[in-house]
Amino acid sequence: MSNARLQGIFTPNLVPYSADGGINEAELRRYVEWLIERGVHGLYPNGSTGEFTRFTPEERRRIVAIIADQTRGRVPILAGAAEANVKETLAACEYYASLGIRAVAIVAPFYYKLSPASVYAYFKEIGDNTPIDVTLYNIPMFASPIDVPTIQRLSEECERIVAIKDSSGEIPHMIRMIQAVKPNRPEFSFLTGWDAALMPMLLVGCDGGTNASSGVVPELTRKLYDLTTTYQIDEARRVQYDLVKLFDTMIYSAEFPEGFRAAVNLRGFEMGQGRQPMSSEQHTDLQTLSRELQCMLSNHGFTDQPIGGCPIAGASPADNPAEVSAIVQQVVAELNRRGLM
Amino acid sequence: MSNARLQGIFTPNLVPYSADGGINEAELRRYVEWLIERGVHGLYPNGSTGEFTRFTPEERRRIVAIIADQTRGRVPILAGAAEANVKETLAACEYYASLGIRAVAIVAPFYYKLSPASVYAYFKEIGDNTPIDVTLYNIPMFASPIDVPTIQRLSEECERIVAIKDSSGEIPHMIRMIQAVKPNRPEFSFLTGWDAALMPMLLVGCDGGTNASSGVVPELTRKLYDLTTTYQIDEARRVQYDLVKLFDTMIYSAEFPEGFRAAVNLRGFEMGQGRQPMSSEQHTDLQTLSRELQCMLSNHGFTDQPIGGCPIAGASPADNPAEVSAIVQQVVAELNRRGLM
Amino acid sequence: MSNARLQGIFTPNLVPYSADGGINEAELRRYVEWLIERGVHGLYPNGSTGEFTRFTPEERRRIVAIIADQTRGRVPILAGAAEANVKETLAACEYYASLGIRAVAIVAPFYYKLSPASVYAYFKEIGDNTPIDVTLYNIPMFASPIDVPTIQRLSEECERIVAIKDSSGEIPHMIRMIQAVKPNRPEFSFLTGWDAALMPMLLVGCDGGTNASSGVVPELTRKLYDLTTTYQIDEARRVQYDLVKLFDTMIYSAEFPEGFRAAVNLRGFEMGQGRQPMSSEQHTDLQTLSRELQCMLSNHGFTDQPIGGCPIAGASPADNPAEVSAIVQQVVAELNRRGLM
Amino acid sequence: MSNARLQGIFTPNLVPYSADGGINEAELRRYVEWLIERGVHGLYPNGSTGEFTRFTPEERRRIVAIIADQTRGRVPILAGAAEANVKETLAACEYYASLGIRAVAIVAPFYYKLSPASVYAYFKEIGDNTPIDVTLYNIPMFASPIDVPTIQRLSEECERIVAIKDSSGEIPHMIRMIQAVKPNRPEFSFLTGWDAALMPMLLVGCDGGTNASSGVVPELTRKLYDLTTTYQIDEARRVQYDLVKLFDTMIYSAEFPEGFRAAVNLRGFEMGQGRQPMSSEQHTDLQTLSRELQCMLSNHGFTDQPIGGCPIAGASPADNPAEVSAIVQQVVAELNRRGLM
Repeated sequence: MSNARLQGIFTPNLVPYSADGGINEAELRRYVEWLIERGVHGLYPNGSTGEFTRFTPEERRRIVAIIADQTRGRVPILAGAAEANVKETLAACEYYASLGIRAVAIVAPFYYKLSPASVYAYFKEIGDNTPIDVTLYNIPMFASPIDVPTIQRLSEECERIVAIKDSSGEIPHMIRMIQAVKPNRPEFSFLTGWDAALMPMLLVGCDGGTNASSGVVPELTRKLYDLTTTYQIDEARRVQYDLVKLFDTMIYSAEFPEGFRAAVNLRGFEMGQGRQPMSSEQHTDLQTLSRELQCMLSNHGFTDQPIGGCPIAGASPADNPAEVSAIVQQVVAELNRRGLM
Repeated sequence: MSNARLQGIFTPNLVPYSADGGINEAELRRYVEWLIERGVHGLYPNGSTGEFTRFTPEERRRIVAIIADQTRGRVPILAGAAEANVKETLAACEYYASLGIRAVAIVAPFYYKLSPASVYAYFKEIGDNTPIDVTLYNIPMFASPIDVPTIQRLSEECERIVAIKDSSGEIPHMIRMIQAVKPNRPEFSFLTGWDAALMPMLLVGCDGGTNASSGVVPELTRKLYDLTTTYQIDEARRVQYDLVKLFDTMIYSAEFPEGFRAAVNLRGFEMGQGRQPMSSEQHTDLQTLSRELQCMLSNHGFTDQPIGGCPIAGASPADNPAEVSAIVQQVVAELNRRGLM
Repeated sequence: MSNARLQGIFTPNLVPYSADGGINEAELRRYVEWLIERGVHGLYPNGSTGEFTRFTPEERRRIVAIIADQTRGRVPILAGAAEANVKETLAACEYYASLGIRAVAIVAPFYYKLSPASVYAYFKEIGDNTPIDVTLYNIPMFASPIDVPTIQRLSEECERIVAIKDSSGEIPHMIRMIQAVKPNRPEFSFLTGWDAALMPMLLVGCDGGTNASSGVVPELTRKLYDLTTTYQIDEARRVQYDLVKLFDTMIYSAEFPEGFRAAVNLRGFEMGQGRQPMSSEQHTDLQTLSRELQCMLSNHGFTDQPIGGCPIAGASPADNPAEVSAIVQQVVAELNRRGLM
Repeated sequence: MSNARLQGIFTPNLVPYSADGGINEAELRRYVEWLIERGVHGLYPNGSTGEFTRFTPEERRRIVAIIADQTRGRVPILAGAAEANVKETLAACEYYASLGIRAVAIVAPFYYKLSPASVYAYFKEIGDNTPIDVTLYNIPMFASPIDVPTIQRLSEECERIVAIKDSSGEIPHMIRMIQAVKPNRPEFSFLTGWDAALMPMLLVGCDGGTNASSGVVPELTRKLYDLTTTYQIDEARRVQYDLVKLFDTMIYSAEFPEGFRAAVNLRGFEMGQGRQPMSSEQHTDLQTLSRELQCMLSNHGFTDQPIGGCPIAGASPADNPAEVSAIVQQVVAELNRRGLM
């Protein structure tokens, strides 16, 4: 695999489960193949969408190994490599390097909320000892934040740190990072993990995204990327609007990433039961959501309509935002109030 | 004043103080004149930048009256009209209507954090009884949030509610509002109050902005608006980057809106001492900030350099981001940690 | 009025409204009389419970004047005196001093979230110029927080600052304040504004409280104070438990302070309609709440049961926590998630 | 080990590291022995203080096995048993049951922020299948919150769930939990994990605590427990005040749990270097902190003074709060602003 810059859409893939709760390798291979065929620029196993915390250290390695084997260098792989501590994380880096993957992504330490000084010290030790290129992974919703001065300093001191993946969704924060890093590291890559802002993020200078929706509708996410990077603004805006609706529905109507799992099922995969238990009420809600998602996907021609049809057959979601979005908006409002957005 | 849609850049003007702490009417008139000459599309007195909470009810009325008199219909005025309760707010609306201003902007109730049901009830009573067009003002950092379902419902039920001004700076939130409101109210206006995201906000569908930086560098804010709305993306991005730096410096290096007051002073106005007392250390910090701002403004040709010159004479801030932005970034990081961003 | 230390239970009284939305003076006088008869140690008009932000500056003065006239020195008055800016606040202090009240309480600046340096500068200017004793009012849920170093510094520099009222409800914070201030100002008073922690607050060193529940069940709040300050721990704990239930029901089941207004109505007062509009759904919810409150109050013998009786007639709430508290707990959980607790 | 109720002080012990970064078994055994000798009622390995997330699954088991072997039933062990998912967690429960420990403590899922429905489903599956008694562990600062209705429901449905450990430090929340659970489960235990509120927590009904300070000054924590449970209020308050100072200094002056590690070193143990890297500046800060802690510990007679002596030789910290607490308070204020308190 070449050392080309990280650019484009990297899919943070879900992992299909088998009936006994293990990794369904055959379905994972079939899913990876399908994603590559539909044009994603790269794959990103062991991300938040990939539920890395719910696997054992051994399972995390096996997931990357399967994907590397299936991909055979056709697209670059960015592998989540965070383990319990720096020593374990570096051991994972060694292993992933041996598999020939392009780079690792390492989330800032979580559970404990660390200060910027500690976040720096953590990545500095990794950056100085890694055998493989490293992408910093900032997701302040779940992990210790990586602030701009820390990113700038790490980018100046560690050559092997080559990119940042930022899932905050904050445009001004992205601009500040680019302004702080680019002058000294013009080849550094900036990836956004927040699908609802992909178009504007690309327009202010991002190089690509690690977008969960690309695991569901790779055609649409890729189209948005292409339209935006060629400045077809009006058309890109329309696709971004559609993507916001789909993304909001998947992310806010069920415990993450169950909405995405339900949607990938609708694209023809057997994703199995997630490892986080659900109450019976949650199972019912998920069936309702699945039907709603099927209507949305069928509007784009990605699936058939569910049996019994959809509320406004044949209409594009953009024509009926009131109906389609009412529930979603309430959930979003609720999440906003909970401080989770 | 016609009933044209609210569109373009509305300046949330500061109010100059006289030596005794009152309103400096002459300087306010001179400032308004200067802003109009430099191309702002409208004026927005009694906004957060205009420190509406630090004036008495009588002073708030006087400020709008002075500006209306000075403007003489050349540009539309959007007047902040929030008072202690609905009855007082409606009385202010009556008065502002009598002055012939274009519309009022009403911030959601603050101090108490109200539920969406109460925010709805508050604006519903105003929307049903106002004699003048109303702009909802959402600034969740300071006041009860106005969520998307509430905005949608108010837009459907109250014709006189014609716009929303949103200062959250969240792109996906703006997209959700537009999707929820536009189908039924195509003429509804969407204004952003967060300068650091002005370009991407306009590109995803905003009609304009109420941007504090336009009170300092109206030329630059107006230029950004023009470049963006004509899809000159690369050039717009460069101006947006410059604006982020200037905006960040003004907003995070001193208690709001002191950084803006210092900068307006540098443009040739006597803004006086603010009403919020400062410690002697804060006074010193403000002098340091003022010098830094003068260098930034002189790079754009808006002022001379300060005596003694600037760190990197003649250089554009974009060439020296490390130097210029180091302090700003630390403050931003700090603010982030405080949960204020 | 003597300069005795602020100590005991100060009731943050609601203001009854007349049919036209004004102040119902006769009912306010009758309510004050009733509170004094039931043993509250002092009165606290223009607090958060008293909805000070929903009155005009003139109304705020009138409220204090009425209460001072009615009280005739029988109990000390602590009057909320925060106005739009320092100058206006000091003018209010002058007026309240002329009425002979014991002290003012001044909330930290709100709307804008100020830094500790600015909070210090604000209170320092007030502390240096006030003609009347000042109580700092810390309510971080609604206003800029007053941190411990700021309180310590102000207590050392300003003799006229004599107390702090803290509504954060955080025990360790209260301990830190006492440790920081008492050595130099042994006579300084510490009052808690969070009824659900009144007993433990008194046990760790508080001098009293400004508790909204004392406006509803002054008998119970006073009893809790007496039991706790005489170290009758087991009995005090039981009363505190009862108070938590009642307080939670009043504060979380309706927009603050509507639950308290409904409860005061049940004690025999005509409190009128609040100034914050309510949706029809909120009106219905309030009726349900009122019935629930009547059952709680009747269990203590403060009212008759509502027509139709209560779910578990004659039972003490402590015997049926599941029934009584289920709804309250859900609301509490919700509020917790919203970050409002 | 009997099935006696969980009661008293359970020490969440740190794990000493050897020179190569592994577990220093000999020192761990010596430390456990020392804690038991000084009167702690139980041990709590794999808690947050014990840095459970920084060990591998195998290491976590080894830590509990060592402690169980060393303790030989003299005091009950409460073992942290959270693993990557329910299946792994239940496997750990099996293992800990085979070691004869008293109960496990299971933190709510972290990284992802789960809804109450998911938190319920997670613990329900564990509660229905565990071979050993379970303590719910609520630490909303780090993990998904466990709200009161969820605790109530789990306590009613799962006999093997026998206790909650709550580290929120919120007194009203503790009261609400007790009111919701005790009527149906009078033997259920309530433990607090927030040392700065230990005395008031016990007074409102807690059964004990899992307090990090008991790993540093077991004599003092135990004394506070004894004084409080025998209602020696004035004396207990003084000890609680001392403990707040020490606890604040350890928890806010360095990245958690480095302040505690430094303090245990001062008690005569070789705790080694932590696994979270530190910058050189952080190392220096930790030396300063260690000296400060040595002075605090020497005031209680737990250590000698550092070479060069302490600022106020021989004085009790309670006499010089200004000096001792100034730095601590600034850090606390900072942490407060960061939303970490």
